[in-house]
Amino acid sequence: MTHDSTAPSRLPPTTLNVDLGERSYPIHIGSAVMGTAEWLAPYLAGNQVLVVTNETIAPLYLERLRLGLPDHLEVRTLVLPDGEEYKTLEQVSRIWDALLEAGFNRRCTLIALGGGVIGDMVGYAAASYQRGVAFIQVPTTLLSQVDSSVGGKTGVNHPRGKNMIGAFWQPKAVLIDIDTLITLPSRELSAGLAEVIKYGLIRDSDFLGWLEANMQALRGLEPDALVSAIERSCRLKADIVAEDETEQGVRALLNLGHTFGHAIESHQGYGQWLHGEAVGAGMAMAAELSHRLGWLDDAQVARCNALIASAGLPLEAPQGMEADDFLERMRLDKKNLDARLRLVLLESLGKACVFDATPSDMLQALLEEFPRR
Amino acid sequence: MTHDSTAPSRLPPTTLNVDLGERSYPIHIGSAVMGTAEWLAPYLAGNQVLVVTNETIAPLYLERLRLGLPDHLEVRTLVLPDGEEYKTLEQVSRIWDALLEAGFNRRCTLIALGGGVIGDMVGYAAASYQRGVAFIQVPTTLLSQVDSSVGGKTGVNHPRGKNMIGAFWQPKAVLIDIDTLITLPSRELSAGLAEVIKYGLIRDSDFLGWLEANMQALRGLEPDALVSAIERSCRLKADIVAEDETEQGVRALLNLGHTFGHAIESHQGYGQWLHGEAVGAGMAMAAELSHRLGWLDDAQVARCNALIASAGLPLEAPQGMEADDFLERMRLDKKNLDARLRLVLLESLGKACVFDATPSDMLQALLEEFPRR
Repeated sequence: MTHDSTAPSRLPPTTLNVDLGERSYPIHIGSAVMGTAEWLAPYLAGNQVLVVTNETIAPLYLERLRLGLPDHLEVRTLVLPDGEEYKTLEQVSRIWDALLEAGFNRRCTLIALGGGVIGDMVGYAAASYQRGVAFIQVPTTLLSQVDSSVGGKTGVNHPRGKNMIGAFWQPKAVLIDIDTLITLPSRELSAGLAEVIKYGLIRDSDFLGWLEANMQALRGLEPDALVSAIERSCRLKADIVAEDETEQGVRALLNLGHTFGHAIESHQGYGQWLHGEAVGAGMAMAAELSHRLGWLDDAQVARCNALIASAGLPLEAPQGMEADDFLERMRLDKKNLDARLRLVLLESLGKACVFDATPSDMLQALLEEFPRR
Repeated sequence: MTHDSTAPSRLPPTTLNVDLGERSYPIHIGSAVMGTAEWLAPYLAGNQVLVVTNETIAPLYLERLRLGLPDHLEVRTLVLPDGEEYKTLEQVSRIWDALLEAGFNRRCTLIALGGGVIGDMVGYAAASYQRGVAFIQVPTTLLSQVDSSVGGKTGVNHPRGKNMIGAFWQPKAVLIDIDTLITLPSRELSAGLAEVIKYGLIRDSDFLGWLEANMQALRGLEPDALVSAIERSCRLKADIVAEDETEQGVRALLNLGHTFGHAIESHQGYGQWLHGEAVGAGMAMAAELSHRLGWLDDAQVARCNALIASAGLPLEAPQGMEADDFLERMRLDKKNLDARLRLVLLESLGKACVFDATPSDMLQALLEEFPRR
């Protein structure tokens, strides 16, 4: 199966450069960026390549990706199980075992073909193999395309917390082939759109307007709309990360909806609510709290909620999850240094802020009164 | 037990700064640098401290180290088994488990109290905990004081190779308390002296002369001599690392004696020959090969050998280890990219070079003819 038989190559890829000095890298976004050597071969460190993917993605895209790897290379593949529950040190060890069994040296290249779990694990495996080797991200979900492509965060979960073991490690390139979204379940497409909306809410009111006008095109997988939304999301994230590599200031804004969202994911059990669904509800909660603080008016809250709903995302918290269930988990969030409760809220649509002094009775009331589904 | 009861505090510590831009750090070298807050407290990132040591060092120095940690801190300790065979991902996972059980956040500090194995593991644990936290090295063997204090190499062994999993991660400070050498077995002291001699051989003929004059003082643990030798060794290594952080050029010179030495260690089984002993014999082999290439004369080889012997190190390869045993293992060395055999040899005493074109018949003859013990 070649690419051309499944999706017409109508668009030349758009390239966005993530500027990180010596560690700068390009993100190529478009249709048919997988499957030709043009967008992959320039970023290989040597002749040894390990492609890591999962059991869901392998039958769909592994062959297509391999068409982009020149014949003279020594290419190995490793297929891991699919799912957040496999984002563990044990699975990363399997990547190291495969590299050592193949006798790969410091000039090898790892390619991560899959969603955020694969990208995070392969990135961490690359960061630690022989103290650091090259890797290339080929994200196949909208969420990983707009979130993991920028920022250099890699790692695995620990039984006591998500992403507790990891490293900052930048890829040599990111290839975003929008054709992979054809096979993405629509629920996961919506989950990815939550992060896209987030970028508009925290920094870019123009983009919010564009999203309102183009949400149906995005959900219909129209290529121009997808490339535009992905590029703008990656650019917004890249600007924020460049301002704050160490995550002490503005980068915290990327957590809009995430403190509430993580509490929902953790209470429901990971995998019940998708991350993006929890973030969607979490953004609605942040908007409502911003309203109670007098920052957003009724019309702004309604507009925010309409956009979240139009992406197919929930506007309610889970049935049966009490205020105390939220508070207990929000205080465990690893961004709350020394147990201080820090929330990202909205000063206006398109402008977020970190607020350290949320009145606890106001938060308590919100958590009690917010609608449940 | 306080420090003063076991060794008089005669010397104010000497401080060497390792210049790495934002990641610069000091090395404090002297008597009684452990046990007072003066040399430790300034480098703690926050109030949470995990001291990691091993079963040999804990009863000797853990209490003394803790005297240097102010009372208001939250201090935990973790005691790991002693030995190279425990330099594994499994033991590093125990460090991560301890950090998470204690609920330590990104502002915690790890302290590595022990030799190279503890330092490498704690450094890697720090590099990967929540994508990187602070750590302080308190090396208690001469080898780790002159080798691991500079360079930022951290990691663990894999069944298929030494140091295959790891990261480059710099400490916030290194505290070298020479009083810890009082309890070091003399065989391990000699092993540490192998690396000290190495620095002289590769870059500093003046230091070689100083070592010839002071070897007995060093083996007798005279404080002034120890501080001088450790400082000069760290400075020489720091200069080399600063010139070549990515280990493509001059940093390779640090492997003088190591390609032969790793082959000996691996053939004999790790732990039979100490690393420094194997490096001692390996340096003698490198000197002999340099002689056969016409670079060193008889007198230079004799001088080199006399210095190695005066440190209590072997001048012979292991009995029963054949030329083929060497060649097989030397080709596996991870510094030999693409299986090319690269050796560090001596142009003169005090000047090493990387030689990629060792005539194979000359190497074969050396390996067959070199004395065995």
